[in-house]
Amino acid sequence: MLENKNNERTSLEKLGEFGLIDHLTQGFEIAQKSTIKGIGDDAAVLNFTDKKTVLTTDLLVEGIHFDLSYMPLKHLGYKAVMVNLSDVYAMNATATQVTVSIAVSNRFPLEALEELYAGIATACKTFGVDLVGGDTTSSKTGLIISVTALGEVEENKITYRSGAKPNDLLVVSGDLGGAYMGLQVLEREKEVFKVNPNNQPDLEPYSYIVERQLKPEARKDIVALLQQLNVQPTAMIDISDGLSSEILHLCKNSNVGCNLYEDKIPLDPTVISACEEFKVDSTMIALSGGEDYELLFTVDQSAFPKIKGNPNLSIIGHITQASEGAHLITRGETKIPLTAQGWNSFGNE
Amino acid sequence: MLENKNNERTSLEKLGEFGLIDHLTQGFEIAQKSTIKGIGDDAAVLNFTDKKTVLTTDLLVEGIHFDLSYMPLKHLGYKAVMVNLSDVYAMNATATQVTVSIAVSNRFPLEALEELYAGIATACKTFGVDLVGGDTTSSKTGLIISVTALGEVEENKITYRSGAKPNDLLVVSGDLGGAYMGLQVLEREKEVFKVNPNNQPDLEPYSYIVERQLKPEARKDIVALLQQLNVQPTAMIDISDGLSSEILHLCKNSNVGCNLYEDKIPLDPTVISACEEFKVDSTMIALSGGEDYELLFTVDQSAFPKIKGNPNLSIIGHITQASEGAHLITRGETKIPLTAQGWNSFGNE
Repeated sequence: MLENKNNERTSLEKLGEFGLIDHLTQGFEIAQKSTIKGIGDDAAVLNFTDKKTVLTTDLLVEGIHFDLSYMPLKHLGYKAVMVNLSDVYAMNATATQVTVSIAVSNRFPLEALEELYAGIATACKTFGVDLVGGDTTSSKTGLIISVTALGEVEENKITYRSGAKPNDLLVVSGDLGGAYMGLQVLEREKEVFKVNPNNQPDLEPYSYIVERQLKPEARKDIVALLQQLNVQPTAMIDISDGLSSEILHLCKNSNVGCNLYEDKIPLDPTVISACEEFKVDSTMIALSGGEDYELLFTVDQSAFPKIKGNPNLSIIGHITQASEGAHLITRGETKIPLTAQGWNSFGNE
Repeated sequence: MLENKNNERTSLEKLGEFGLIDHLTQGFEIAQKSTIKGIGDDAAVLNFTDKKTVLTTDLLVEGIHFDLSYMPLKHLGYKAVMVNLSDVYAMNATATQVTVSIAVSNRFPLEALEELYAGIATACKTFGVDLVGGDTTSSKTGLIISVTALGEVEENKITYRSGAKPNDLLVVSGDLGGAYMGLQVLEREKEVFKVNPNNQPDLEPYSYIVERQLKPEARKDIVALLQQLNVQPTAMIDISDGLSSEILHLCKNSNVGCNLYEDKIPLDPTVISACEEFKVDSTMIALSGGEDYELLFTVDQSAFPKIKGNPNLSIIGHITQASEGAHLITRGETKIPLTAQGWNSFGNE
């Protein structure tokens, strides 16, 4: 992936740290009126005078969160921003600014970092957020990306994980399991490539799930949709670590239980067929796969008429008393306690 | 340094990512009234309704920015916060919140991370800032720390790098070169230790400069002092990369020149004697050493009576027209153009 057709490579050493930041961030424009001063001083200066500020941060590490053998750097830059914006949207907020710090071996040519920043720029432009700072340094090995995102929200719209109450509907955006199955396809093709480098993989049948892995889209549109439908979620969380893990977070923070209905979990046909091919259970993948960056939220039952039938939303269950626990109701109507089997980077080494 | 006397070690794998964050951040208290919601949701929620927000971020990488063979983890946690607060103070702002993300090999025992967070906690408590978020993940090698700091400031107090004007006085807090010379001492002792592990180094004569390297203090007190003296700096920057590099940043951003007087550069006697011992020029070390985390600022000449003789402040020169360039006036009254020889992580590998 780091093979650049352009044989002229610029070493990072030649540019130095300041030259590098200047170079990589030129052409980024300021879109938010809350940005008073972006890059170029000791700190950015922002104006959140009318609203509350939300703040979130994530770290992506090569070899743990991404594999450059199949993750194009442009996609990686885009995804690093998405992962953070998804957390901002999960507060029912508008994303406004990001900072991006990278640690990179000086074996990476400048052109590789330009690719990465092209993806960051596309994400910023598409989602209307300003890049207002960051740090660029060398690493002994590989690439590390640290993104911090800020957003703004009116006080009465802030949606925590803690507001769900019994009888609320449990709703999820989009469909689940795609990112994880996309990763399985990419990992398989990587193994095939190792054995036979001349083999050209046909990823066409898997394009949807591969894209879910390589180019996830944070659900800014869902925040706008809820606003437009005049629905205030009672609780919300983004699904980065798998549905079951996030439901349990939400239940724990709200001190409630829930019933989740297996037959209501939204699955794309491509996910179902990939699960068949890989001989894994699609419900298990949706529950534990992770990286879907969809929004999981609860709404009062009175919102049902506004939400039902919306192609972007699936009602997958309802909230119960904490004493009833959190359960999956299977297609066979068996009640199974939900367990967190989300992704744990420390267990995956 | 990772040798813990306590032989019971807790593996990170056992705790998992969520358990780890919960564990490490327990006992952190909220001190700022602008913190509405800290750790525990998709994002922190902050209230900057009355003031402007400043935002800065820095990445510290093992083997590049620190060496665990002589950097105790508690000091490292403290320093990681200081590095960022220094940037907030350089805006003439009050530091309010930090987020801390770490990527760490699961070969690190939990007890090592507890040490790191103890240093972070001490920094937060001492400087009155709230830890409101972060991410904890594994790395393939070593330790990476990413800190983001926020601060608040009244609009008319914000101090950029760009406000210096001809005839302003150039002022620096504290003394310079200590952190760099402390590093030289530590590096020398490390080499001695490699040859003879039984040799007990006597660092006592170097305690000031070693502390400047291992436990720098961000100059919150200088922001308070300027406020108390009723002095509004025209421009300000923190000295992380050496005096000359930061002066040139300030001059470039303000579109001015300057004369810096060699005999006015504040040097601690320990720095001078260490420079003699290591046979390096103390002026060169002050100009290029870096990591002192002092504040460099300019004030209108009318502020002279308020500033002169203050033991925390040294007037080291004055601002000129841009056309005159930036120069060092040596003790021998020779005029030498200032050049940036600050620290460049890409050139140091």
